[in-house]
Amino acid sequence: MGVDEALSTFQKQLKLERLASIQIPVHAALGRVTAEDFVAKTDLPPFDRSAVDGFAVIAKDTFEASQFSPKIFNITENDRIVRKETRAYACAVWTGGPLPKRADAVVMLEHTKKIEDQIEVWTPVTPGENVSRKGEDIQRGAVALEAGTRLQPHHLGLVAALGATHVSVIEKPRVAVISTGNELVELSYKPKPNQIVDVNRLILSGMCLELGAEPLDLGNAKDDVNEIRGKVEEGVKVADMTVTTGGTSVGYADFVPTAISQSGTPGVLVHGIAMRPGMPTALAILHGRPVLALPGNPVAAVIGFEVFARPILLRLLGIRSEPRPVIEAKTTRKIAAALGRRVFLRVYAFEKDGRFFAEPVRVKGAGVLSTLTKANGYVVIPESREGLGKGEAVTVHLFDKIGEQQDV
Amino acid sequence: MGVDEALSTFQKQLKLERLASIQIPVHAALGRVTAEDFVAKTDLPPFDRSAVDGFAVIAKDTFEASQFSPKIFNITENDRIVRKETRAYACAVWTGGPLPKRADAVVMLEHTKKIEDQIEVWTPVTPGENVSRKGEDIQRGAVALEAGTRLQPHHLGLVAALGATHVSVIEKPRVAVISTGNELVELSYKPKPNQIVDVNRLILSGMCLELGAEPLDLGNAKDDVNEIRGKVEEGVKVADMTVTTGGTSVGYADFVPTAISQSGTPGVLVHGIAMRPGMPTALAILHGRPVLALPGNPVAAVIGFEVFARPILLRLLGIRSEPRPVIEAKTTRKIAAALGRRVFLRVYAFEKDGRFFAEPVRVKGAGVLSTLTKANGYVVIPESREGLGKGEAVTVHLFDKIGEQQDV
Repeated sequence: MGVDEALSTFQKQLKLERLASIQIPVHAALGRVTAEDFVAKTDLPPFDRSAVDGFAVIAKDTFEASQFSPKIFNITENDRIVRKETRAYACAVWTGGPLPKRADAVVMLEHTKKIEDQIEVWTPVTPGENVSRKGEDIQRGAVALEAGTRLQPHHLGLVAALGATHVSVIEKPRVAVISTGNELVELSYKPKPNQIVDVNRLILSGMCLELGAEPLDLGNAKDDVNEIRGKVEEGVKVADMTVTTGGTSVGYADFVPTAISQSGTPGVLVHGIAMRPGMPTALAILHGRPVLALPGNPVAAVIGFEVFARPILLRLLGIRSEPRPVIEAKTTRKIAAALGRRVFLRVYAFEKDGRFFAEPVRVKGAGVLSTLTKANGYVVIPESREGLGKGEAVTVHLFDKIGEQQDV
Repeated sequence: MGVDEALSTFQKQLKLERLASIQIPVHAALGRVTAEDFVAKTDLPPFDRSAVDGFAVIAKDTFEASQFSPKIFNITENDRIVRKETRAYACAVWTGGPLPKRADAVVMLEHTKKIEDQIEVWTPVTPGENVSRKGEDIQRGAVALEAGTRLQPHHLGLVAALGATHVSVIEKPRVAVISTGNELVELSYKPKPNQIVDVNRLILSGMCLELGAEPLDLGNAKDDVNEIRGKVEEGVKVADMTVTTGGTSVGYADFVPTAISQSGTPGVLVHGIAMRPGMPTALAILHGRPVLALPGNPVAAVIGFEVFARPILLRLLGIRSEPRPVIEAKTTRKIAAALGRRVFLRVYAFEKDGRFFAEPVRVKGAGVLSTLTKANGYVVIPESREGLGKGEAVTVHLFDKIGEQQDV
């Protein structure tokens, strides 16, 4: 089954709803996702204020001022411009400070000169000049931030400036992470010959954290259908999504799909996907919740998470789309691929003479973690292609910074 | 003083050294920066292993196999291929599993057929075929990750796969964050008329967190040189960098530069920079540590942090370069700028018909936070330009995802 068909088969049966919302303090909301449109309850700025350092005036008092014939203003310390007889008054203001009452413009400091207790004004201003009007930034009642916004520092600033101390965000999706395999040992154990360190839970937990989800590490299950079934059922109970690695080989050592099938309906919807890496991936639903059985090979697990788990987490968070940054680049060499399979080719993208190049990371065998750590992005080779030519234009999906110039 | 001159004046006197390193558990290292090259203490994979699901064999036993004339193999359950008389033996293996002794290749499962307790092999394999050799991914003694790598999930996986439980990372830079201004009230207070909520510490603390630094919120100081001086001196004592906002107007209400100058030498090196926003920025050094006095206007503070604080934090972390993603786009309209000033223009970048466009976010007055929240990037207009034409090609530095198609 092709990737697109697998995804549509899966999504058709998976009725995903956005998770519930929760009110949290603005201080704690960095990286969280807004649950609803944030409507301004006040104007921003909340009052007319000066956009510069200078003197607030009544604009028409400045109209004939010039460098050769400055106008003289008395200074008032009050928060209002007074008018006595025919004398003009000005009031010192700073950037962001409130505009004194009756003032309608601000003369910039550098267009004035202080002479004892008076100032000379050299430049006329028009009404409204150098003034930020109340509501000019955001008007009361306007949508300041849309639902589904991942909160960056300046978003928090806007929310706080509008008077909010709390913000309504989506609960963090909980992701149960399970590894399977007799050959795996925990990080703190020294592997015996023929054992390997269990790294998949560490990697996938990190990918969850990066997306703002909460990983629940349910540990390692041996290659035993009952043990796996116990962990998967625990995952489905406590988490919004369950992800396993290993034990998914099609028609052979498929402990995880077997365990899922025994756990409920509809169970496994897709098993075996025409992609590389990641062919033995299975997509399942238990109690309405997604269960992804990813391969044990860490690179395949990462690609499987990217292709199948990431979109689910974004939907649970109510984010319509959050693509990785992409660049257009030219391949540095020819790459063979298998017709009929979608290939996720790891590449090292770099800039040279103002143009981008994508160097395929050399790979032999399975599970080669350095194809990820040496790469900074991936290129998708579609099913219809037997490979890519040298110098071919490709889209690189970046997961790390672009490299420095290299010899091509 | 221009931005480049300000930066070089500042950096010439600021002898920044990378911060100290600390050993932390791999579990807790996501987003941290490696302090030294990580050298592999073991080979990865640690032993020869199968790259596929199938049967390990001695390759030459398969040499004449074909679909019409399969070779028959007996199955051995041991972890070694036995050879008795002239009969050939195979041993079931899974992807990633160790290669049995004496085996030198693996036949893929789909090229075999099980018949009772024997298998038919239809396809010959060459020695080494479908085998990941010991050390093929990373060789013992090789640099697996360079110093200055910001650890992503797959980096942690590699480190753990190589047997490490801890990793040496740079200490988090501590950044003292101080706001100044009589008009500011804390987030939980309802501002009176003419007061505004103090959002700068919130925003700048978030920017520190995003870069992997630790913000120390030293609170708000009134517009009083002694109070500001007390907080700045505390900041210089406890933090690697101190950042203030407000009270920096050149030649007027410059409480912060005055306070810094009273606190020690060399004090303020630069005050007033030809940039927009951010003109009243001051760059200072106290006790060898950087002190950045940013404007009170939140947008100017954010741009000032981006231009001056971010490079310092990256240097403290030992990261040579960590540029934001960039795209090339065409402006959607003409933009005026002031000759002789470097302008940081906030834009909304979007894709339409496969091309990128940059829509300048309309701005009136100072401190307009929505110019950041409506933007997803910025364009630098150099000092030599009076503006940008419509349809001009520009580089957009992205701080948020690219927008959806819009009518231009």
